[in-house]
Amino acid sequence: MYIGIDLGGTNIAVGLVDENGTIIHKDSIPTNASRHYSEIIRDMAQLSLKVIEDAGYQLKDIKSIGIGSPGTPNNEKGILVYANNLQFYNVPMREEMQKYIDLPVYIENDANCAALAEAVAGAAKDVNNSITITLGTGVGSGIIINKKIYSGFNYAGGELGHTVIVMDGEQCTCGRKGCWEAYASATGLIRQTREAAVKNPDSIINKLVDGDLDKIGGKTAFDAAKKGDPVGQKVVETYIRYLAEGIVNVINAFQPEMLVIGGGICKEGDYLLKPLRELVKDKVYSKDIPQTEIRIAQLGNDAGIIGAAMLGK
Amino acid sequence: MYIGIDLGGTNIAVGLVDENGTIIHKDSIPTNASRHYSEIIRDMAQLSLKVIEDAGYQLKDIKSIGIGSPGTPNNEKGILVYANNLQFYNVPMREEMQKYIDLPVYIENDANCAALAEAVAGAAKDVNNSITITLGTGVGSGIIINKKIYSGFNYAGGELGHTVIVMDGEQCTCGRKGCWEAYASATGLIRQTREAAVKNPDSIINKLVDGDLDKIGGKTAFDAAKKGDPVGQKVVETYIRYLAEGIVNVINAFQPEMLVIGGGICKEGDYLLKPLRELVKDKVYSKDIPQTEIRIAQLGNDAGIIGAAMLGK
Repeated sequence: MYIGIDLGGTNIAVGLVDENGTIIHKDSIPTNASRHYSEIIRDMAQLSLKVIEDAGYQLKDIKSIGIGSPGTPNNEKGILVYANNLQFYNVPMREEMQKYIDLPVYIENDANCAALAEAVAGAAKDVNNSITITLGTGVGSGIIINKKIYSGFNYAGGELGHTVIVMDGEQCTCGRKGCWEAYASATGLIRQTREAAVKNPDSIINKLVDGDLDKIGGKTAFDAAKKGDPVGQKVVETYIRYLAEGIVNVINAFQPEMLVIGGGICKEGDYLLKPLRELVKDKVYSKDIPQTEIRIAQLGNDAGIIGAAMLGK
Repeated sequence: MYIGIDLGGTNIAVGLVDENGTIIHKDSIPTNASRHYSEIIRDMAQLSLKVIEDAGYQLKDIKSIGIGSPGTPNNEKGILVYANNLQFYNVPMREEMQKYIDLPVYIENDANCAALAEAVAGAAKDVNNSITITLGTGVGSGIIINKKIYSGFNYAGGELGHTVIVMDGEQCTCGRKGCWEAYASATGLIRQTREAAVKNPDSIINKLVDGDLDKIGGKTAFDAAKKGDPVGQKVVETYIRYLAEGIVNVINAFQPEMLVIGGGICKEGDYLLKPLRELVKDKVYSKDIPQTEIRIAQLGNDAGIIGAAMLGK
């Protein structure tokens, strides 16, 4: 048995996970991220002990604790080098955690944990090499090579959302202009939908949000498109082109056997996947050979817990 | 001892290489690429035997033969799946070669061989993870992870030149628009130089080529810039921006410990490297951690032979 901790800016989620990546029991508490790291990590440890006990297990049944966190962890040193939204800088995660629980502690970036989870127990469990892209506030990504996370020599690799596809394009949060994330994230889609709604006040988009553009979400353009709204259809078509452009870049670079897409936008299912797969098929560099399969993520929000737990496997 | 064969569209180059990646003896003959593959491979075998004999060695001293070729090889099956410029489709390289020489035969893409050579015996020999980019007719690239070539599940990965940095931009030979290769290759630089020369007939660029724009090469804009020509300086500045944009993408994705740049343009040395390093330093996603080092390739045209030889190591 393994403990997986998904440390987020809002909540700390802890799960007891078996060797197949199945969650036996889980629980969560608010992070209260403004506190000192020592208090947050104490809560993480106490919740871990509670989850183990509530599930009817004992500490001796647990092999290790894995922590998935935003930012750049250094697992070798057991340190979270930095995580902006937690205001953590060089936090000794392992040392702090081991004050409360004497077990091996692994730390890893949360997007990498999600990718590992899909590789061990989700959409990519049948292949050795996979990449998981999560379309949310940003474009998260994790690279799995031979069932292990690949993150470069300094643990900071796999930032596929921060590869420029439109040089000098939209401002990205990372400081560059034109990153894939600025176009293919839910945030990017919402911006594109809002711009289209402003330009086309008669569009169904405006009706769907009762004229309140702040209500536009990642679903809005898709909903409008499905009702036959040409403005919505154009937004969706353009969004999928941005998404495809980055995915083809990823495939040409990595040729993973499986490319997994997660995040709320995936609920659109074939409405998203079908045109996406066609664009990708048309644009990849090497055509007359086995092709990367594109699938929807299977583990949803549990991926963070499962991937963190599997760090110790 | 190992035999390394660099199979090009123009020449077949064969080298006898020791375990450190040092060429003991080498020789080359024209490919005459319009011939049937069986004749070309027979010549490759006969030249290999000649190189071994001329160096004073015997077949029993040789551990393996490696072949670096353009296109997409499948080393598992020993087949060159396709190579456009040789008109090779599903050519049984290993089987043909072993008709003449009974040794293990490995085949690999030529850009990947160049990257392996730099990783074993060149600019990246002191690190485990490196990427080598070659700026020539195209942008070649090879990814080395733990001193081994990474090329994805179908041996076609590592096509970093075919990642789009300017969506809907310049037409690329691969069918997409805006690939890094279309901007950062020597071909791309020559196009940019020619366009600037046409727009600015008084530029030193035009004088350097006696008004004959077909004489513009990868050096021309750099030569003009060094003479103080503002048009040449602008071309060089823009070219380095394109180069940096793609390199930052590569670093954010892979975080290799070393990024090696090869090809004729590298002869510009610090005139290229200094502004490039500054742009990259400013734009990478993760700043307060160890950074990828950028170096010029060391092995030049021998990289193909050395890398091919090292496939069997």
